[in-house]
Amino acid sequence: MTRKFPFSKDISLAFKNDPPGQWLLALPEGCIRLSSGYPEPVLVPAEAIKSATIRLLDEEQDLPLQYIGSPRIPQLKEAIRQRMAKRGVELMDEELLVTSGACQAIDLISRVLLDDKAVVALESPTYMEALEVFRNYTEHFMNIPVDAKGMDTDRFAEMLANRKREGLTLPRIFYTIPTSQNPTGTTLTPERREHLLVLAEEFDFLILEDDAYGELAFAEAPKLLKAMDGGNNRVIHIGSLSKVVAPGMRIGWVAGGAELVSTLGWFKKDLNHPFAQSVMASFLEATDFDAHLASLTNAYRAKSMAMLQALEQFMPPSVTWYAPEGGYFMWLQLPGIDTADMLPQALAAGVSYVPGKHFHLDQEHCEYLRLSFSYADAEAIVEGVRKLAEVVGANLPQDEPQGE
Amino acid sequence: MTRKFPFSKDISLAFKNDPPGQWLLALPEGCIRLSSGYPEPVLVPAEAIKSATIRLLDEEQDLPLQYIGSPRIPQLKEAIRQRMAKRGVELMDEELLVTSGACQAIDLISRVLLDDKAVVALESPTYMEALEVFRNYTEHFMNIPVDAKGMDTDRFAEMLANRKREGLTLPRIFYTIPTSQNPTGTTLTPERREHLLVLAEEFDFLILEDDAYGELAFAEAPKLLKAMDGGNNRVIHIGSLSKVVAPGMRIGWVAGGAELVSTLGWFKKDLNHPFAQSVMASFLEATDFDAHLASLTNAYRAKSMAMLQALEQFMPPSVTWYAPEGGYFMWLQLPGIDTADMLPQALAAGVSYVPGKHFHLDQEHCEYLRLSFSYADAEAIVEGVRKLAEVVGANLPQDEPQGE
Repeated sequence: MTRKFPFSKDISLAFKNDPPGQWLLALPEGCIRLSSGYPEPVLVPAEAIKSATIRLLDEEQDLPLQYIGSPRIPQLKEAIRQRMAKRGVELMDEELLVTSGACQAIDLISRVLLDDKAVVALESPTYMEALEVFRNYTEHFMNIPVDAKGMDTDRFAEMLANRKREGLTLPRIFYTIPTSQNPTGTTLTPERREHLLVLAEEFDFLILEDDAYGELAFAEAPKLLKAMDGGNNRVIHIGSLSKVVAPGMRIGWVAGGAELVSTLGWFKKDLNHPFAQSVMASFLEATDFDAHLASLTNAYRAKSMAMLQALEQFMPPSVTWYAPEGGYFMWLQLPGIDTADMLPQALAAGVSYVPGKHFHLDQEHCEYLRLSFSYADAEAIVEGVRKLAEVVGANLPQDEPQGE
Repeated sequence: MTRKFPFSKDISLAFKNDPPGQWLLALPEGCIRLSSGYPEPVLVPAEAIKSATIRLLDEEQDLPLQYIGSPRIPQLKEAIRQRMAKRGVELMDEELLVTSGACQAIDLISRVLLDDKAVVALESPTYMEALEVFRNYTEHFMNIPVDAKGMDTDRFAEMLANRKREGLTLPRIFYTIPTSQNPTGTTLTPERREHLLVLAEEFDFLILEDDAYGELAFAEAPKLLKAMDGGNNRVIHIGSLSKVVAPGMRIGWVAGGAELVSTLGWFKKDLNHPFAQSVMASFLEATDFDAHLASLTNAYRAKSMAMLQALEQFMPPSVTWYAPEGGYFMWLQLPGIDTADMLPQALAAGVSYVPGKHFHLDQEHCEYLRLSFSYADAEAIVEGVRKLAEVVGANLPQDEPQGE
């Protein structure tokens, strides 16, 4: 007998897509994973985390296994505060909340700042989990296009001015991944960052700066929006150790005004994660983090170069992409191809990717796809791109050449 | 410059109390902690969790540190499924969601089932974190008194019938800790369990069964409400390994109908906790859990006996309590004493407790307090009760003897 639960909100949207993580499990054996936004296995410091756990429990016994009491929990927060300071953001203790990853941070911020009348402005395309979080709160979105220089602030300004003129609700927040964006890999230029901050002031919205990839810039990354904002609290900054240490540890954070951060903490009802947080603190205290980042950045840069070269070598000339300046991803345009339709052929050929439509709200047909150079090794990347190029070649419209 | 955030809901209630965890930190050095609802340090299996982590990372390397992929994550779920089956609840995979502790489970259920018009029925007194979760969603409550046999179902029936007659909204959920309740330590009798299920059917509400202490019953515990409910899904069951393994691991679960569980999963935006969950699975696979529980139950029974004897020996005759049948807690009535007012004297004397008012909604004066026999060892418990009895003696109304 099915019981009808008294659902308090419309959850029909929630079931449109499977959670993205399911795809990895579903891939055929031996498939080259250019879909996975995960660190390469050899770049995950499993041995160091093992040592960190041993040292932690030898030194503290039950403390990190209780609710509270481990001295390493405040130490983790202090380590994050120091990294933020290095990047130009000085934070008081009450302006920082450690979360279970960036996604929980986005959810908590949405919980506090959004209701079903709120408008959320988004880069289009953007991080699919963020889309899914926001859709739990509202159905009202502004989609701002992204190009090689990141989100198009001129277009955003135009859209905002139009809304204002037409008396439409202005956005409450703008969610952005300004550096090495997921999925496009593009980085918002310093000029556009300035412009964005001006727009936020003029049209009175808050900026959610998701910096998951900011420490994986191949060259120097532009200044953080949060650092450019001074103490204005127009920018809420979201950080994460998922891409630079290990996603399975679930350590992220929010930096914002003290009042907001305290409220977010109130709504964070998983209490705390003493074990995971103190293991991470123990790992960080034994790690030269700048050296760790340099070695990661070198590895991902080399893998991105391997992918770029393979794309140039194997892809048909109508296929285009942006050269990444950091992060995990590349974004390909395949004129005339529906990338969701093509996916089964790619999987059969032994290579996976994420169809572009998953990074958009309610987009049925999409001629873009996301490749990740983070998970596979360089050799597999080249082989994966070669396989994919063959599938693409067989799917290109023959008699109607398209492209830019 | 203070920025006014566009808060989407009234959060003024949220700041009434500090989070309960803060109290432990604030206690004076050397204070005997009869306030702490934590396992005794020697009963937390820190060595076994260390070994479990080493074995996990040696065998799986990066897998438990990625988002997904560790075979031990489904194994944890299977272990929980098997424990539930032993207790009379057969679950399909899609009827079980692993959460970050029981509190996150309560929050997710509230998120899906409540809105600001919903009425929540509660035991009075009850778990303070649960109160704080529910208060984030609604201001409408029914408080059902608790006596030595658990929640008073006759009184509940009366209150429900009155509401119905008066055309008032009936509760959407009833939150209960039926076995070794926090804070009273009482256990709902089998007869009252039957009665509660009848009421739920008659007045069409869902029962949230929080079973955090159910496996710490000193004798055989009554049947789970979820087991008595058959496949009816009138009961949503919440479990936790916090009290029987380690709270810092943050492993709890929800068992309910597949549709509800799938929806809860959708709103659980911390993604997953692969590291914590796979460490726990690794711990469980190397542990004879029934033997582990037997040894915990013996230890807590002995400590509860020590507390009972000390109370009988030292407390003034007007002070009364329930003898616990399991769990962590005892609930004392101190006629004529405001236990919040008395706390500073107790702390100064070197013993802590939790004033009863924190387990009630908006109760200013309360002559009850909660003692925990879980955290301190037996010797400290006796000494703590002796100190507390002195403070109580000095605070008892002299010329107006009260009591039952």
